Amino acid sequence: MKTRERILQTSLALFNEQGEGAVSTNHIADEMDISPGNLYYHFRNKDQIVSELYDRYHTGLSSLLDVPSDVVLELEDVWLFLHLVLERINEYRFIYDNLTDILRRSRPVRRQFGFLLKAKREAALSLCAALQRSGMMTASNREVEDLSTSIVMVATFWIGYESATGTTGLPQTGGGAHQVMTLLAPYLREPERSHLATLADAYRQ
Amino acid sequence: MKTRERILQTSLALFNEQGEGAVSTNHIADEMDISPGNLYYHFRNKDQIVSELYDRYHTGLSSLLDVPSDVVLELEDVWLFLHLVLERINEYRFIYDNLTDILRRSRPVRRQFGFLLKAKREAALSLCAALQRSGMMTASNREVEDLSTSIVMVATFWIGYESATGTTGLPQTGGGAHQVMTLLAPYLREPERSHLATLADAYRQ
Repeated sequence: MKTRERILQTSLALFNEQGEGAVSTNHIADEMDISPGNLYYHFRNKDQIVSELYDRYHTGLSSLLDVPSDVVLELEDVWLFLHLVLERINEYRFIYDNLTDILRRSRPVRRQFGFLLKAKREAALSLCAALQRSGMMTASNREVEDLSTSIVMVATFWIGYESATGTTGLPQTGGGAHQVMTLLAPYLREPERSHLATLADAYRQ
Repeated sequence: MKTRERILQTSLALFNEQGEGAVSTNHIADEMDISPGNLYYHFRNKDQIVSELYDRYHTGLSSLLDVPSDVVLELEDVWLFLHLVLERINEYRFIYDNLTDILRRSRPVRRQFGFLLKAKREAALSLCAALQRSGMMTASNREVEDLSTSIVMVATFWIGYESATGTTGLPQTGGGAHQVMTLLAPYLREPERSHLATLADAYRQ
């Protein structure tokens, strides 16, 4: 593996573990057993590393969120989709641990993140539209708009919330997927609403 | 106003404005036109300032969240309550802007925050119980548990979410109260559900 790639992977691991604010480029170089000068050759400063990690996160999540507008879905598909999104967020959780600060420091990242939030909402709206089309869900346009905002908020901040409640070990992405499903539940018609409760019991700790 | 109090208020303003990570004690002293030595006399380091500001936040929010278990509520009371909670969160938004990092750096703050999250959930559960008692809301115990978690998440992270979506100017605490009410809406019986939609229209931008 090339040094540049190793720097990015080591930085990601350290940022996630200790918080991006607490990790310096010297720290990263030390962890990798390379000189600060060697690291400087690849990245002039930490913000360049953060920026590139953010780009990878953004690209990966954007393609995941590109839900076709005519998609046909079962509840299990929604569940799987949420898991994939939450796992991606968890992989780059340092961004959310220090969100406002990271957005403040870089205008390009701030602008990109704004697009990403829009993409998240569009995906939530598409999922709701698919569930409505298949007759599984009943909700007005206004309800779907509000629901989509709540879905994005719960999915986005689940991992931070779990850390703050002191849940030990790896964040439970299953718990996050469950929490989003409970937002959908009251709008589902009966066969699916009970089916969801059964799926939910499987995840309840 | 005594110097010690001025330090706390200046720190709070700078932390909220620029992020706690970006503000040093020299910066605070400079803003106040006092010497770093004078500041050091009152607070040995920034973590002591953060710790005391957190204590004030915790004490204030805890008393607000102390909802009597036999309280009688109209929807407007719930709305007002949410506004008060969101305004308090907004007053100390630096904590949420940098939550994981602040919790990592101080075990006492981490423990206290854990209690605060529990208190938030208890308050949400009490509000739901009050609405059920007055016959306005219909939900199973499991639904109320899940709903309370979503209420705490949306209220807690609303201001961070608004910053990230690039909503300019002061965070809209009314928007946060609205978003929480939309979580309750599908469980309200009809007269109140339409009444809520009317109240909501008043807040829609």
